[in-house]
Amino acid sequence: MRRVIEVRDPDDARLDDFRGLTTADRRPDRPGGRGLVIAEGVVVVRRMLASRYPLRAVLGVPRRLEELAEDLAGRTAPVYACSAELMAEVVGFHLNRGVLAVADRPVPWTPLDVVRDARRLLVLEGVGDHENLGSLFRNAAALGVDGVLLGPGCADPLYRRSVRVSMGHVLAVPFAPLAEWPVGLKWLREEGFRVLAMTPAAEAVPVGEFAGVERLAVLLGSEGPGLTSAAIEAADAAVRIPMAGGVDSLNVATAGAVAFYALGTFPG
Amino acid sequence: MRRVIEVRDPDDARLDDFRGLTTADRRPDRPGGRGLVIAEGVVVVRRMLASRYPLRAVLGVPRRLEELAEDLAGRTAPVYACSAELMAEVVGFHLNRGVLAVADRPVPWTPLDVVRDARRLLVLEGVGDHENLGSLFRNAAALGVDGVLLGPGCADPLYRRSVRVSMGHVLAVPFAPLAEWPVGLKWLREEGFRVLAMTPAAEAVPVGEFAGVERLAVLLGSEGPGLTSAAIEAADAAVRIPMAGGVDSLNVATAGAVAFYALGTFPG
Repeated sequence: MRRVIEVRDPDDARLDDFRGLTTADRRPDRPGGRGLVIAEGVVVVRRMLASRYPLRAVLGVPRRLEELAEDLAGRTAPVYACSAELMAEVVGFHLNRGVLAVADRPVPWTPLDVVRDARRLLVLEGVGDHENLGSLFRNAAALGVDGVLLGPGCADPLYRRSVRVSMGHVLAVPFAPLAEWPVGLKWLREEGFRVLAMTPAAEAVPVGEFAGVERLAVLLGSEGPGLTSAAIEAADAAVRIPMAGGVDSLNVATAGAVAFYALGTFPG
Repeated sequence: MRRVIEVRDPDDARLDDFRGLTTADRRPDRPGGRGLVIAEGVVVVRRMLASRYPLRAVLGVPRRLEELAEDLAGRTAPVYACSAELMAEVVGFHLNRGVLAVADRPVPWTPLDVVRDARRLLVLEGVGDHENLGSLFRNAAALGVDGVLLGPGCADPLYRRSVRVSMGHVLAVPFAPLAEWPVGLKWLREEGFRVLAMTPAAEAVPVGEFAGVERLAVLLGSEGPGLTSAAIEAADAAVRIPMAGGVDSLNVATAGAVAFYALGTFPG
């Protein structure tokens, strides 16, 4: 591992990237937000180190930094070691994962970048909950989704909580905003995608019926209201997960996982 | 709706069932816990009213009680109305769902009750996280699971947070502890169940291969460590969800949802 810099002063200016993570100004979507991307814990920091995100610095307790020694080899960004107490003071809360990394936002993908070689896409409308968004990326990564397009009303996938809940997969799965809405769905169809709108409606087709289709985009709305009718109408078909009578639909991220399993791209 | 009793005094003894819900003594699994079952919000309260759980009382703001008027018709348990402020003072936090119901625990199901007519069972080992447990019940209900058996190390499904995250489905899906472990799995096999142990291991069989089997029990371990080897060895087969290379396994509740979808009991 590269030489670790020990820090003992909580006011050390070199730790400013890690300071006061709970306060609103660290939220990139708020005025004054600096838009840095924060990774928490060994697993997520490791994914950040393996990603295209330009690393600025790492801060952790010695034990966690040791776990990351191989991943940190050859990196030029500074690595700061401190006590758990000092870390809590800087960050603003006790971070039991014991290590943080911070990166800049790279040049964002365009919708065309995301779509070009994809066979399975996730398209979201109104998913404003950071945890649901993070879970959707985690499930997308696990089930072979090639990219995510964000329609109106979606939260920022790079906000700290989304990064954490996604287990760092928001740093790997390409995503881009789909600004034209629902016209962007028409564009997807022109690009050769069958666009499937997920709904609990009984008249929708079981999602598994589309399993053989080469290029598929699955459209999911927010928990509660679901997709707008404009989005459903712009899709090729309304699809559903067959469910037991009288039961609420699944959580949006779980529904996404089941849908992509049902539409599988895996041989096994 | 039956006559609603207005309450204006936060110290009113009739509200004692609802008092201090965040403190440890309200946790049935802690010494001094009274073991009452709490439902929060219109959807979950409605499920409690439709369940076999003996209702003790309902407390809510007038607007939420009106939404429940039909469900409350003909019930003899007292219904208390109060302001949101008084409710927060009694409960110990601001409850933005605006309504609570409290019930006693009924006579528990036995494992035999749970198993008798079941075709699909969920069997859990070491699922100590109340939210994961609640999500597992929600997904089980949605995907037609007939019952849940709780092996060692599982949390109490009737704890408030589990009830809430399950959307009230813990009050409907039969469950029982499976005390003998892993011997209880042998008993399940004698009852005619094929017992499938979920693992991310590459050598496991894709779970969908068992879709046609009449009686199936799916065994899931806790997030992180997963199932013990004793449990896996006691099962008929180790099964996995086919996943993209290098990705963590799914969250335990999501894995359960995908597995039961894959093993489907639904014609559509």
